[in-house]
Amino acid sequence: MIHEECGVFGIWQRESGPVANDVYAGLFALQHRGQEAAGIAVSRRGVFRHHKDVGLVDEVFSEGALDRLGEGNIAVGHVRYSTSGSPGRANAQPIVVRHRKGNMALCHNGNLINSAELREALEMEGCIFHTTSDTEVIAFLITRARLKCGSIEEALEKTMNRIEGAYSLILMSPSKLLAARDPRGFRPLCMGETKEGGTVFASETCALDAVGARFVRDLDPGEIVIADRDGIRSIRSHCGTAPRALCVFEYIYFARPDSVIDGASVHRARIRAGRFLAQRHPVSADVVIGVPDSGLDAAIGFSAESGIPYDIGLVKNKYIGRTFIAPTQTQRERMVRLKLNPVRHVLAGRRVVLVDDSIVRGTTLAALIRLVREAGAAEVHVRISAPPFLHPCYYGTDIDSEDKLIAVRHTVEETAGLIGADSLGYLPVEDAIKLPLRQEKYDPDQCGLCTACFDGTYPTAIPEQGSKNRFEQPIAE
Amino acid sequence: MIHEECGVFGIWQRESGPVANDVYAGLFALQHRGQEAAGIAVSRRGVFRHHKDVGLVDEVFSEGALDRLGEGNIAVGHVRYSTSGSPGRANAQPIVVRHRKGNMALCHNGNLINSAELREALEMEGCIFHTTSDTEVIAFLITRARLKCGSIEEALEKTMNRIEGAYSLILMSPSKLLAARDPRGFRPLCMGETKEGGTVFASETCALDAVGARFVRDLDPGEIVIADRDGIRSIRSHCGTAPRALCVFEYIYFARPDSVIDGASVHRARIRAGRFLAQRHPVSADVVIGVPDSGLDAAIGFSAESGIPYDIGLVKNKYIGRTFIAPTQTQRERMVRLKLNPVRHVLAGRRVVLVDDSIVRGTTLAALIRLVREAGAAEVHVRISAPPFLHPCYYGTDIDSEDKLIAVRHTVEETAGLIGADSLGYLPVEDAIKLPLRQEKYDPDQCGLCTACFDGTYPTAIPEQGSKNRFEQPIAE
Amino acid sequence: MIHEECGVFGIWQRESGPVANDVYAGLFALQHRGQEAAGIAVSRRGVFRHHKDVGLVDEVFSEGALDRLGEGNIAVGHVRYSTSGSPGRANAQPIVVRHRKGNMALCHNGNLINSAELREALEMEGCIFHTTSDTEVIAFLITRARLKCGSIEEALEKTMNRIEGAYSLILMSPSKLLAARDPRGFRPLCMGETKEGGTVFASETCALDAVGARFVRDLDPGEIVIADRDGIRSIRSHCGTAPRALCVFEYIYFARPDSVIDGASVHRARIRAGRFLAQRHPVSADVVIGVPDSGLDAAIGFSAESGIPYDIGLVKNKYIGRTFIAPTQTQRERMVRLKLNPVRHVLAGRRVVLVDDSIVRGTTLAALIRLVREAGAAEVHVRISAPPFLHPCYYGTDIDSEDKLIAVRHTVEETAGLIGADSLGYLPVEDAIKLPLRQEKYDPDQCGLCTACFDGTYPTAIPEQGSKNRFEQPIAE
Amino acid sequence: MIHEECGVFGIWQRESGPVANDVYAGLFALQHRGQEAAGIAVSRRGVFRHHKDVGLVDEVFSEGALDRLGEGNIAVGHVRYSTSGSPGRANAQPIVVRHRKGNMALCHNGNLINSAELREALEMEGCIFHTTSDTEVIAFLITRARLKCGSIEEALEKTMNRIEGAYSLILMSPSKLLAARDPRGFRPLCMGETKEGGTVFASETCALDAVGARFVRDLDPGEIVIADRDGIRSIRSHCGTAPRALCVFEYIYFARPDSVIDGASVHRARIRAGRFLAQRHPVSADVVIGVPDSGLDAAIGFSAESGIPYDIGLVKNKYIGRTFIAPTQTQRERMVRLKLNPVRHVLAGRRVVLVDDSIVRGTTLAALIRLVREAGAAEVHVRISAPPFLHPCYYGTDIDSEDKLIAVRHTVEETAGLIGADSLGYLPVEDAIKLPLRQEKYDPDQCGLCTACFDGTYPTAIPEQGSKNRFEQPIAE
Repeated sequence: MIHEECGVFGIWQRESGPVANDVYAGLFALQHRGQEAAGIAVSRRGVFRHHKDVGLVDEVFSEGALDRLGEGNIAVGHVRYSTSGSPGRANAQPIVVRHRKGNMALCHNGNLINSAELREALEMEGCIFHTTSDTEVIAFLITRARLKCGSIEEALEKTMNRIEGAYSLILMSPSKLLAARDPRGFRPLCMGETKEGGTVFASETCALDAVGARFVRDLDPGEIVIADRDGIRSIRSHCGTAPRALCVFEYIYFARPDSVIDGASVHRARIRAGRFLAQRHPVSADVVIGVPDSGLDAAIGFSAESGIPYDIGLVKNKYIGRTFIAPTQTQRERMVRLKLNPVRHVLAGRRVVLVDDSIVRGTTLAALIRLVREAGAAEVHVRISAPPFLHPCYYGTDIDSEDKLIAVRHTVEETAGLIGADSLGYLPVEDAIKLPLRQEKYDPDQCGLCTACFDGTYPTAIPEQGSKNRFEQPIAE
Repeated sequence: MIHEECGVFGIWQRESGPVANDVYAGLFALQHRGQEAAGIAVSRRGVFRHHKDVGLVDEVFSEGALDRLGEGNIAVGHVRYSTSGSPGRANAQPIVVRHRKGNMALCHNGNLINSAELREALEMEGCIFHTTSDTEVIAFLITRARLKCGSIEEALEKTMNRIEGAYSLILMSPSKLLAARDPRGFRPLCMGETKEGGTVFASETCALDAVGARFVRDLDPGEIVIADRDGIRSIRSHCGTAPRALCVFEYIYFARPDSVIDGASVHRARIRAGRFLAQRHPVSADVVIGVPDSGLDAAIGFSAESGIPYDIGLVKNKYIGRTFIAPTQTQRERMVRLKLNPVRHVLAGRRVVLVDDSIVRGTTLAALIRLVREAGAAEVHVRISAPPFLHPCYYGTDIDSEDKLIAVRHTVEETAGLIGADSLGYLPVEDAIKLPLRQEKYDPDQCGLCTACFDGTYPTAIPEQGSKNRFEQPIAE
Repeated sequence: MIHEECGVFGIWQRESGPVANDVYAGLFALQHRGQEAAGIAVSRRGVFRHHKDVGLVDEVFSEGALDRLGEGNIAVGHVRYSTSGSPGRANAQPIVVRHRKGNMALCHNGNLINSAELREALEMEGCIFHTTSDTEVIAFLITRARLKCGSIEEALEKTMNRIEGAYSLILMSPSKLLAARDPRGFRPLCMGETKEGGTVFASETCALDAVGARFVRDLDPGEIVIADRDGIRSIRSHCGTAPRALCVFEYIYFARPDSVIDGASVHRARIRAGRFLAQRHPVSADVVIGVPDSGLDAAIGFSAESGIPYDIGLVKNKYIGRTFIAPTQTQRERMVRLKLNPVRHVLAGRRVVLVDDSIVRGTTLAALIRLVREAGAAEVHVRISAPPFLHPCYYGTDIDSEDKLIAVRHTVEETAGLIGADSLGYLPVEDAIKLPLRQEKYDPDQCGLCTACFDGTYPTAIPEQGSKNRFEQPIAE
Repeated sequence: MIHEECGVFGIWQRESGPVANDVYAGLFALQHRGQEAAGIAVSRRGVFRHHKDVGLVDEVFSEGALDRLGEGNIAVGHVRYSTSGSPGRANAQPIVVRHRKGNMALCHNGNLINSAELREALEMEGCIFHTTSDTEVIAFLITRARLKCGSIEEALEKTMNRIEGAYSLILMSPSKLLAARDPRGFRPLCMGETKEGGTVFASETCALDAVGARFVRDLDPGEIVIADRDGIRSIRSHCGTAPRALCVFEYIYFARPDSVIDGASVHRARIRAGRFLAQRHPVSADVVIGVPDSGLDAAIGFSAESGIPYDIGLVKNKYIGRTFIAPTQTQRERMVRLKLNPVRHVLAGRRVVLVDDSIVRGTTLAALIRLVREAGAAEVHVRISAPPFLHPCYYGTDIDSEDKLIAVRHTVEETAGLIGADSLGYLPVEDAIKLPLRQEKYDPDQCGLCTACFDGTYPTAIPEQGSKNRFEQPIAE
């Protein structure tokens, strides 16, 4: 499974109030983007309080922990899945910086490609890093820029001219809330307005819904937006222009289906993926089923386009959680069974179209196909709502190493045989870039997508091999 | 929401092995039947070890806790939702009895209707109860019967002649595993066989699947089955005959859709509910959506019967758990929002059929309908895959008090108005009893269902008002 | 080390108030009598609340736990060291009985000698035991006696006629507080009066001091005292007379030195033990030191009688607690070092008298003598403020099995050689019975002591070998 | 009560082994120097692992936590009582620095007087501080010095030329263990040798005893000692000379009586304090008692000099711990009672000399004197084994603010009246400096003591008022 990366959320309002509760709700809606750690920082008249730890949002934040954060008029929060930096409490965000030139809390979604070089230079100037995350590099750059700048937004501009790669940032100073998106817009970031007139920034629109905020607009690539007592200001001039390159996998898997990213519904994109699959890889079958939860939308699209009835053929145990005891090697088949159980009545004697969102190594899908056949399926035709993974991602996605990706080593036919499918069809890359159906006001020429993991066309220079983990030297906690 | 009651699981095998792991897997598959407490007891050469506590199965059983249970050749387990007895650790099951006449571990799903009388008599004979549950009454009756009986199965027979109501029991003695179902078969109980030839009893077939066991058959109402070194024996003669009365709500809501109960697929029963609804309450609309998760099957059935397209209109946050912070009264609307978020693109401008499994007070459904309308739905037609709740249940289901049931106090039209629906249709009781489509070998005359909560026709005498909680005197822990 | 047994505490007052806080303070003062588990039960207008768990008093009772107990006008509490019954939460006290004939909370210090017979009879009458402790036997006897009695005090009288052995009991009914002491007075039990006129019962007077209560008197052997709205009543006629036999080891080691038991100061008794030792086993030496903490009083007495200066030669690390990591076999010497470190300056070149309270196996004392010699002591003369242990105790003291007692297998001279002492002297039994110096009003003929562990003269019949643990059948939790 | 500050411990040995266990034992012996937090860092072939948290040593280090640290050949550890820096996990030590120029773990006992100035300068050069402790200032200075130095010892030399105040440091690099003491030797630091030939540094000799190490010598003021594969080297030339000024309160209260500091036994120093008191403030009395634990040694000295018998008049509850529930204002008297209970038999009708180590506000002592009188004491003569506190300490001791020190506001006679004593005598400053009785090899002219808190003679310049807490800005965790 390709893992999600991170989610960010921030709120500014004129009057002090329980803003931590809003961030809690927003992070809860963004939980799918990171389940490893969570954190919230609150500013109350410039005084910061924060709490962060490893765990899910509702594990990290007991009612007492939220109460201790207290009221305030600005707050930011983060859910983390580690793409760089080892896991653990030290790498949880927000990163809170206390400094004579002004305190700051920083939340970051994405991956820099030049963080190794920047970090080396900073250490040689006498900086001591406490984490292994890119985010601390950004924190040092902003803090050191502030020594020479008049304002935090100037310091942020200068920093954006030095960092390269994918980032959506939300920053809190004692009096301001700032959001910034990298010049290619790799990761989503949107802005909303609460019923009370406050300003909200979030990774996805589902987090705006969670706090009852109205969607205002997406941030433009390379844009900084500042919310403070003087209102909302935008800065766009500082870091040049670059072709937009939103990660297409946000539509295919990462984002929640109820979110709308850069003007396009995620659910509709997935329905379209299913329709494209039905057009490109038609098959004669009796029933279409999806692998819960992320294959369901595309399965409905495939059914609608093909006319083959949709049904529920696999039931997911909704109590599967992180604490479930890891099975021994011989119990792995049971693990799949515990998570997904076939509905015999739907599958027995049927020719089944099974829709899933992606194939990484193929082992889980193979086990699933065995289950479906044991339940009596006559044929199993697999349709994948993404192109095959062939290349590494440097922008914050945890794609497996190339030598383990089944599509790198095997043809489609070989793969079908390995996983035990009667047929196998992937979504072509040319269809993938058509998944988001944008509202009219969006200029299609400005709406490029990053498909590097499928076709190797990277929007930026790429770092030397192995650099992603070069700071992972062993100082264990 | 009507709450599930309890789930039971037991395993016997010839050789000693990690039977606790099997019970763990079985209970995990039955988790939907009770989330309040869990427990497992293991017999190793007649020596019992057990562990139980409040919490979900994977919270109660860390890897260390499972290891400490050790190996054995018999084990039983239980997941609990309290229908009688206050919550808390003391009421968790299995109840382990240590006694000179033989040790015993007891798991129970159901509710007795004469437990108050039995308990009073036992106390006046000098018994001291440590819990408030019906199960301890059964434990005392069996133990005292054993003082005069040759065997535990005889003691169980005698006990079944004294207790009245709904029960599916699994018992472990140092050398035997026993299962018993009440004479009306209110609660499901089935038998399976593991690949190694062991015997498994479970509340639902999905738990057999979880341990890779083959379904053998359902227990008959009033039957006792014993598994030990001499093989499998059945006792049927001891407690007379009574019309079968399986709880119909097992098909509508309680059981998992991938289970098969008394010969009928639960998923198919729900698909049929949707089809019946489309026949009885047709409507002109653009899309059919279900309330996740329990309304989805019926929504697909409604779509198939009506021809109106099925789609995903509400996305459920899968991280919603028990530790989520309870919202204040003013935040309750946000709570619904956090759990379920509409997919605007699916609903905007559409005439929507919204399928749910039941209405209790109507407040949650009303909030949901507001969300759907806010997302732009032109019309909202609600279809409920159960008849209206009108009467209390004495057999282990936690239906709200009558004065809070919306259907008791309001007509269908009034209810539609109160929840804000353009139309509302319930499943008629005459269709409800047709939901299970049994395999041919089942004699339909023998397959009655209990529909007392809908029509007030109770299969047994009913206890005096208020007796359910008469032992809930205040000795807090 | 001989372990303490248990401590009991109870309070009754006219008005409702924070009585749980008083029990907490009382139990904290009695903590030395049992460190394994603690519990408190409170009655508020007849409604019981209780909390108990394994751990020290301040571990079991967080501020929240005390608050949840709430206010009341009667409360009882217990600290436990297991002398019969396996450890664990189930055996913690008070035992709270909920029964149609009246609720009850029971605390017990001591050991019955006929509990096995009583338990067998009760089980054969259909009782189910949940613990392995004597206390539950008493609870069943009282409860069953109440079925035929008018009052709880009558039921207690009847029960005292059936149980044999050592017990100091404190009971709470919804409206009464009762205390009772066995006919021989093996274990201490005293009564006090709070500043507000309430009645307190406790194992030792130091617990009266802890709540600022005035000492009133010790309970007489065989006496029941009842405190309720009608005042204080005493019952003495029910269980015959027997020679008094207070455990002499209460003076030597168990009780706190600041307590006064049956009219005699514990501290003074220990000072006298030191003086007797100096008379019986004089030696030419330079300094007298005691093994902290229980050898210090006797060392001061030895110094005062002999004229040899007293000094502090061993410093105890006061942070030694139960969670300290158990050392491996090779680290055991380090463990003694971590607990007790010699003061080189006091010992180097000196002839040392080392006073300790008892020798069980001799291994710890041998390690200690090695430490003292390493610190430069020229000679080490050991004086023990108790006679040698030669016989098992059936009255609630955890004396090691006979085959491990060093004094059973070796002469005094052999023992001195084994532990590495230059000389060794025990307190003679004829001096031990003179340790308590009672106030004049106590009739010496009525003040016998139990010295069975030293001389084998048991005040009661003794149970068959092994019966102490015959209920420790393996039903692990 | 004046609080202890911190304890440091380090070990180097040639071969890899369970060095974390040695540090654990050493820290456990130093626990009296800091109960707020504890930490250990281990180097295994240059790879660092560390663990630290708030809590006592045996709370922070479960057996699993020690195991996870693994084996190694160098390790350092720290127990903390916060004298600067807010409490909490972030300020726990060792501070582990990961840097391109070499990793480092740092432990620090003491207080700098110029840390505010140093920190300001570092922040203006772009440093970001994560804690509020002086130790991080030292960590930055060493790290930045290393950018220009060949070795860590050179960097340490340069750093010692910039920092002013009290410090005993232990540092670990991947291959070296270093210890350093400030030029005045405010805080103790000694060196020992393990049986296997390893090198140990510790705050006190009792920690050497705990690991079975032989005492080698104290570090000289201003000295750096380095242990590595090339043996042991000393650097003394780098930071000039200054009169030695060991904190006299180490002898009076901080250190353990079984420790030997700069050649003088702590126990003997306290015995001498008692003897001086008997000479300076003689009194006619019947018994001498000490306030446990720190008044006991001086009480024995007073008894020996005066001929008045020593006895145990106050019994300390040894289960008093940090989790004991804080009493409400009205319960404070009970709190003293729970901690210390008088032995009535020793005190009743007697003229009592009560010896304690110091008076801060006088409230606890007043409560204690009330207890002693309630127990029947005829007279209470208080003798204090320290001079009166009159001035603040800037070197790491937590003396209360001047306006709360009873001796600042009241004469000795007034104080006696306020606390309820019949007479009161302090140790004169001229006697205090004679407490340590050094071995002959120590040159008395080189053995000055810091007595600034008694006489205001500060060995260094002192910081501006209030600077101690100037970094305690509110960024709560």
